[in-house]
Amino acid sequence: MDSSSGNSSNSSPSNSNSSNSSPSNPAATPLVDAAIIETAVLLREQALNSNRAWQIVEQLTTQIGPRLAGTQANVRAVRWAKSLLDNGGFDRVWLEPIVFPLWQRHREKARVIGDYAQPLTITALGYSGSTPGEIQGQVVHFETLAAFEKAPKERVINKIVFVNQATARTKDGTGYGNSVPLRYQGSVLAKEKGAIAVLIRSIGTSHHRFAHTGATARLDSPVPAAALSVPDADQLMRLLALGSPIVVGLDISVSLHQQGQSHNVIAQIDGAIEPEKIILMGAHLDSWDLGTGAIDDGAGVGITVAAAELIALQAKKPKRSIRLVLFGNEEAGLWGAKQYVDAHKDQMINHVYGSESDFGAGKVWRFDIEDLALRNMIMPVLAPLGIEAGLEPPTSGGPDIKPLKKVGVNVFRLKQDGSDYFDFHHTADDTLDKVDPEGLKQNVAAWAVVMYLLSNQ
Amino acid sequence: MDSSSGNSSNSSPSNSNSSNSSPSNPAATPLVDAAIIETAVLLREQALNSNRAWQIVEQLTTQIGPRLAGTQANVRAVRWAKSLLDNGGFDRVWLEPIVFPLWQRHREKARVIGDYAQPLTITALGYSGSTPGEIQGQVVHFETLAAFEKAPKERVINKIVFVNQATARTKDGTGYGNSVPLRYQGSVLAKEKGAIAVLIRSIGTSHHRFAHTGATARLDSPVPAAALSVPDADQLMRLLALGSPIVVGLDISVSLHQQGQSHNVIAQIDGAIEPEKIILMGAHLDSWDLGTGAIDDGAGVGITVAAAELIALQAKKPKRSIRLVLFGNEEAGLWGAKQYVDAHKDQMINHVYGSESDFGAGKVWRFDIEDLALRNMIMPVLAPLGIEAGLEPPTSGGPDIKPLKKVGVNVFRLKQDGSDYFDFHHTADDTLDKVDPEGLKQNVAAWAVVMYLLSNQ
Repeated sequence: MDSSSGNSSNSSPSNSNSSNSSPSNPAATPLVDAAIIETAVLLREQALNSNRAWQIVEQLTTQIGPRLAGTQANVRAVRWAKSLLDNGGFDRVWLEPIVFPLWQRHREKARVIGDYAQPLTITALGYSGSTPGEIQGQVVHFETLAAFEKAPKERVINKIVFVNQATARTKDGTGYGNSVPLRYQGSVLAKEKGAIAVLIRSIGTSHHRFAHTGATARLDSPVPAAALSVPDADQLMRLLALGSPIVVGLDISVSLHQQGQSHNVIAQIDGAIEPEKIILMGAHLDSWDLGTGAIDDGAGVGITVAAAELIALQAKKPKRSIRLVLFGNEEAGLWGAKQYVDAHKDQMINHVYGSESDFGAGKVWRFDIEDLALRNMIMPVLAPLGIEAGLEPPTSGGPDIKPLKKVGVNVFRLKQDGSDYFDFHHTADDTLDKVDPEGLKQNVAAWAVVMYLLSNQ
Repeated sequence: MDSSSGNSSNSSPSNSNSSNSSPSNPAATPLVDAAIIETAVLLREQALNSNRAWQIVEQLTTQIGPRLAGTQANVRAVRWAKSLLDNGGFDRVWLEPIVFPLWQRHREKARVIGDYAQPLTITALGYSGSTPGEIQGQVVHFETLAAFEKAPKERVINKIVFVNQATARTKDGTGYGNSVPLRYQGSVLAKEKGAIAVLIRSIGTSHHRFAHTGATARLDSPVPAAALSVPDADQLMRLLALGSPIVVGLDISVSLHQQGQSHNVIAQIDGAIEPEKIILMGAHLDSWDLGTGAIDDGAGVGITVAAAELIALQAKKPKRSIRLVLFGNEEAGLWGAKQYVDAHKDQMINHVYGSESDFGAGKVWRFDIEDLALRNMIMPVLAPLGIEAGLEPPTSGGPDIKPLKKVGVNVFRLKQDGSDYFDFHHTADDTLDKVDPEGLKQNVAAWAVVMYLLSNQ
């Protein structure tokens, strides 16, 4: 899932035109034939009886493992994805090149120095700066980003700032969304106020000793910025409570290359009647470097590929085209998604709907779409999966859909239960065993149903 | 908890003499006055209403953190413990020096090389050898230690052996006990058979990505020996299942000094009537280097010190002496315990009972003691804590009690629920938040009751 922006985006005016796509009263004229609904039901049942998504997640996380965009592993991931899709029954599969600055971590160490000497578990944040060997500084603590924001320069200059703001566990990811500004802005404030480094409490919810990475702001000459695991943040708070100054040593080595390269990997089922109209489903192929990218976003890759494959296997092509985009670099700032929109600027008008699966394998519990007629058509097929209808328009179609939404593409959302998502997300603990096979199946079923029905309306 | 021997020891003949200490029929002559029982009940209730043990664990794990015997942090731990006990109301507090070989880890890295290149999470085992920079070798897999044992030299020579034997989750630690030989003997077999290194599946029960350390056999020119986290062991199995040879690179840097030094830290409440008779309670002050040693054995230190302090506060001294020993180096091979027995060889006959708290803060569910009269006296006071009477003689008094048991000292056991103990034990995740404050209180109550009653019989 997008690290730089979380779930906190709000609906924009450009999104309120989706009801235009529903030309008539659904009670009078059904949007699709009964046979289409029947096929959607069949797709749903096939999805529930298949472990194809699991196979895909297993392959990706085992054979490639971590696959930060721009690395050799990512090159392998692109090759793997291309081959996977080439064999998926699609009408067309192609790569689109993307470029971006490539940030990589090499070494990250922290320790308390002095009377309470001990190591601390940290991870550097994406776009953090390096330290020149070990730097040492007194820790100044703030409870929240807002408190740090208000602090005068004199309090933090030449110090290591530590912000201990906790992330709430929520079903919908809003707890994480509220914390993302801490990760993103912490380094900006640190630089502005003359701090020598910034440490934040990990913006995950795990109480295991994993530090949570993700992108911080991209600055010229950035300060070193890192996250402490939650147990280490608590430990540092206890050490500070002892009353004497706490000095921490930080040794962070990272590199930033001016240009990294990767690809968006794209597959399409061409529409039989309106092939130029596109219903886009996405996931992202890249991952952070610490885990094997199983829930973020191996799960999304497995779900969307398995769902699209099921549709591609049907004898009858959908009316409109279904386009599956495995975005090339989501984690470091939606680079693949932005370049997709640039490359397809002129076709954006033909992108009817877009949505992404990027929230692990937690079961879908709500379907958000603004168009009431479409909702009324789709919901009866989704409801047996335990999915309810959202009562408000979707605020987001997922991280990589933001650039599309911004230029006016309608979005829908299959909202997943993410209660435990931030226990694993962006940590070394994001591994295959954290993926729920049953959740995957239900997600595939929901995606197959929605994509199939949207592409036939 | 003792890493080198687990819970797998059986009762030895030297332990079957404890019923001799019960001279008369308990129905005819009560072993202790009613006032003693009354005080035991009072101690129990005081323990349940105090968070003293928590304070102690918090101090030790926060102010010292990891404290491998022989390190500077361990020197601070000894100083801290001495000061703690000096203020605990004891009649005497003293240090006894111990020596041992000091093994320390400096660097540990592993990666899969080739088509599936990716990092692996490992930790070196205590007494492992170093690699000369990175070594690379093909992985040969065995399901169990027994299978490795049977393998001909030709299969493993110049290879990296990987043994994937899983550890069962059990209440009493027997799952771990069954796995300890894998950790201990794996490196012996590897050396005998000409393997260049040995990797074992972590002998913990956590499915989080923590590798589990602990001592392996101490050899001349040892091979590099390390544990993979459970998710990484599963990953390696999946990679091997792909069918092509898997080559792993290992880079392990450790050091072994001929002599490390530490101390057993000892406090005593002198007995009023038979001061030469000793009831010994122990815990160990050292910890592995990865976590902060909260459950292993900060919890035991907190439990035993808090229980002993409560007894020391009583106006009336017990009949016999209560001796609290915080052993100086348990983790690397019971060095403190062995040297305690050596130093007190002539007094062993006066050590009436010994037991250790070294199984985290899980609640005590059973009390094991061979002497029926003593059991009948003590159980009514323990039962309200949810503790049942063991029906067999105790097989162990805890790791550091083994050397005492070997020379004939009677042992008792307050058996704790260790169902989740091996989720944290010997990993970086052994931190304060994993300690259950309510479990600590119940343990303190049980220890105070048993020590007080045994010292007054």
